[in-house]
Amino acid sequence: MTSLFTSPVAVSHWWLKEFLAPGMVAVDATAGNGYDTALLAERVGPSGRVFAFDIQQEALEETKKRLVKLGLADRVRLIAAGHERLLEYIQSPINAMVFNLGYRPRGDKTIITRPETTIEALKAGMTLLVPNGLIVMTVYVGHPGGAEEWTSLERFIAGLPTEEWRVVKLRFINRPEHAPFNIGLQKIG
Amino acid sequence: MTSLFTSPVAVSHWWLKEFLAPGMVAVDATAGNGYDTALLAERVGPSGRVFAFDIQQEALEETKKRLVKLGLADRVRLIAAGHERLLEYIQSPINAMVFNLGYRPRGDKTIITRPETTIEALKAGMTLLVPNGLIVMTVYVGHPGGAEEWTSLERFIAGLPTEEWRVVKLRFINRPEHAPFNIGLQKIG
Repeated sequence: MTSLFTSPVAVSHWWLKEFLAPGMVAVDATAGNGYDTALLAERVGPSGRVFAFDIQQEALEETKKRLVKLGLADRVRLIAAGHERLLEYIQSPINAMVFNLGYRPRGDKTIITRPETTIEALKAGMTLLVPNGLIVMTVYVGHPGGAEEWTSLERFIAGLPTEEWRVVKLRFINRPEHAPFNIGLQKIG
Repeated sequence: MTSLFTSPVAVSHWWLKEFLAPGMVAVDATAGNGYDTALLAERVGPSGRVFAFDIQQEALEETKKRLVKLGLADRVRLIAAGHERLLEYIQSPINAMVFNLGYRPRGDKTIITRPETTIEALKAGMTLLVPNGLIVMTVYVGHPGGAEEWTSLERFIAGLPTEEWRVVKLRFINRPEHAPFNIGLQKIG
């Protein structure tokens, strides 16, 4: 039987799998170790396109390695820039975008996503998103700076107009307050 | 493109559809107008079994009518009793259970689900649930008695042991505080 709620990352992947289809264009705002990038690349198929951002060279190398191993590198463009610069690199419509906030697992824990740049990237993604398009975020509040990032982010997304955006938060209510959780934004079509 | 987060009832149906498979046994704790019962019956197939509870004769008639129309009545047992009496009617394992709390749409708005009986039914369902089994609830807090019901329910489910239960809450964070939301409980297998 299907395990629906294993972990926040699993929930994020579940939602993306449910949504993505061959030929779509997707953005990984935080390539990290490349797990999300690989999922996007697999789901959009050979006719689709994925853009993956990271400011850490190591992250991009790790992602590249994973994609090559899976035979998915062709359809992915790796971009060595902060995700807040999205619109410098992409001007055409996108179907989906994923964020995995905080620091890179097994990487430098002092390099974290930050409220201003996260929100700037999110806003940029929202402008490119097609009707019914999906943005999925895994949010971490347990590390230094995490709670502040979520406070800013929440203020922005909780204020989005109901008639234009569906904004959901899924959290594990029998886990500690600072446990990671999921955000889903869908543009009403 | 798939609309993932249309409404709490749609989310509940999405989760159930994702989880249910032919041959399963499912319980509708609140038959109401029969929409959930019909979904369960459809998904468990002719080899599956559905039990649907309601204390209102009108609700059971409405549900029956819907099931007959869809050719699904054979696999469903309608039970004219409060869901807190679950164990009087079912003693064998169940795969899934659904609750749609509050009052019956288009019915008598003074007849509502209540904290003690809701929790008793939930506990009964949990004892019958197989490993990896799923319980899905749509919770309403906008009607008189709704907030009290949720307070009691939350106290119980937020205290469930993390190593035995995954308990999630999905809410629309850009809608009013009193908007309905979803609860998912999955027994760790």
